[in-house]
Amino acid sequence: MPHFNIEYSANLADKVDMQALVDVVHAAVVSLGPFPLGGLRVRAFPTETYAIADKLPENGFIDMSFRIGAGRSDAEKKRAGEVIFGAVSDHLKTLFDTPHFMLSLEIREIDPELSWKKNSIHTRLSNTK
Amino acid sequence: MPHFNIEYSANLADKVDMQALVDVVHAAVVSLGPFPLGGLRVRAFPTETYAIADKLPENGFIDMSFRIGAGRSDAEKKRAGEVIFGAVSDHLKTLFDTPHFMLSLEIREIDPELSWKKNSIHTRLSNTK
Amino acid sequence: MPHFNIEYSANLADKVDMQALVDVVHAAVVSLGPFPLGGLRVRAFPTETYAIADKLPENGFIDMSFRIGAGRSDAEKKRAGEVIFGAVSDHLKTLFDTPHFMLSLEIREIDPELSWKKNSIHTRLSNTK
Repeated sequence: MPHFNIEYSANLADKVDMQALVDVVHAAVVSLGPFPLGGLRVRAFPTETYAIADKLPENGFIDMSFRIGAGRSDAEKKRAGEVIFGAVSDHLKTLFDTPHFMLSLEIREIDPELSWKKNSIHTRLSNTK
Repeated sequence: MPHFNIEYSANLADKVDMQALVDVVHAAVVSLGPFPLGGLRVRAFPTETYAIADKLPENGFIDMSFRIGAGRSDAEKKRAGEVIFGAVSDHLKTLFDTPHFMLSLEIREIDPELSWKKNSIHTRLSNTK
Repeated sequence: MPHFNIEYSANLADKVDMQALVDVVHAAVVSLGPFPLGGLRVRAFPTETYAIADKLPENGFIDMSFRIGAGRSDAEKKRAGEVIFGAVSDHLKTLFDTPHFMLSLEIREIDPELSWKKNSIHTRLSNTK
């Protein structure tokens, strides 16, 4: 953990460098502090088939979901959302100048009793520090 | 909000016009009333790698997930599920005539304390009304 | 139900036979007992755009999500997670020999009040038994 998922309408692929967006999110999450680098997985999935708002072909969306381990305070979670959403909003500022774009973010906690994980990257990162 | 996600096995792409299905869902959600057009995002994702039930190659599935903002009553949520599931079931009637198809829908509320959104479509739609 | 989703970084496609992985999960779920074969849908989605941990190009992840119907005991859910995670970990043993791999699993219950389903496979499977 944590897991960061981005879904986006494929018509944005011409306008947004999605690898750069993933890197912006990665940097924002790392900057926060409480989320270990060695467990961070940011990824994006395009959809080719969609119907957005009034269905103008220019309409586009980016929807983000951040799943985190339990144990962060409400304040830490609020701040995480604000920092990440702020960084992405800034990065995509030109899209908001058009009347055709929606951005969203949801944070959800993973139940520690019903999750399992195994990670060979954590060990490497601990060793190099 | 709201967000409507459809996942489907790619072997259905020959049998179902997925853009038409997305449009059927879009129309059903709009017909309900409590969900603003300007925030609606319906989208579909195919999977090429799957194992369904007894793994006959003809087996196919469509799984739908509807994430909505908080504040609707239980009755409104129940009705939303019934109307959307009914519309999609009717649209896919011929698939149910085969013994190889599964359809499902789940509604989940988004925590208002842990979600963020920004939308330049809402403003345009308000202005044109 | 149940639904089993696998997301993975596309750089693993050379190293892991994803159809074989989906089949390993399918077999593990069926072996458990409380999950009916006729409702099982295992599927996988690759991501081509991602940033994993310290962003070495060799870093890869597989993230699994198991959504199940309500009604199983805590012990049944725990056992399900352990058996499935164990089977997948064994299958991917060589990946854990590298310092570049993360595997995760989350189980989540579907709210019976807010879910709908229709299944023409169940009937066929009941008839053949």
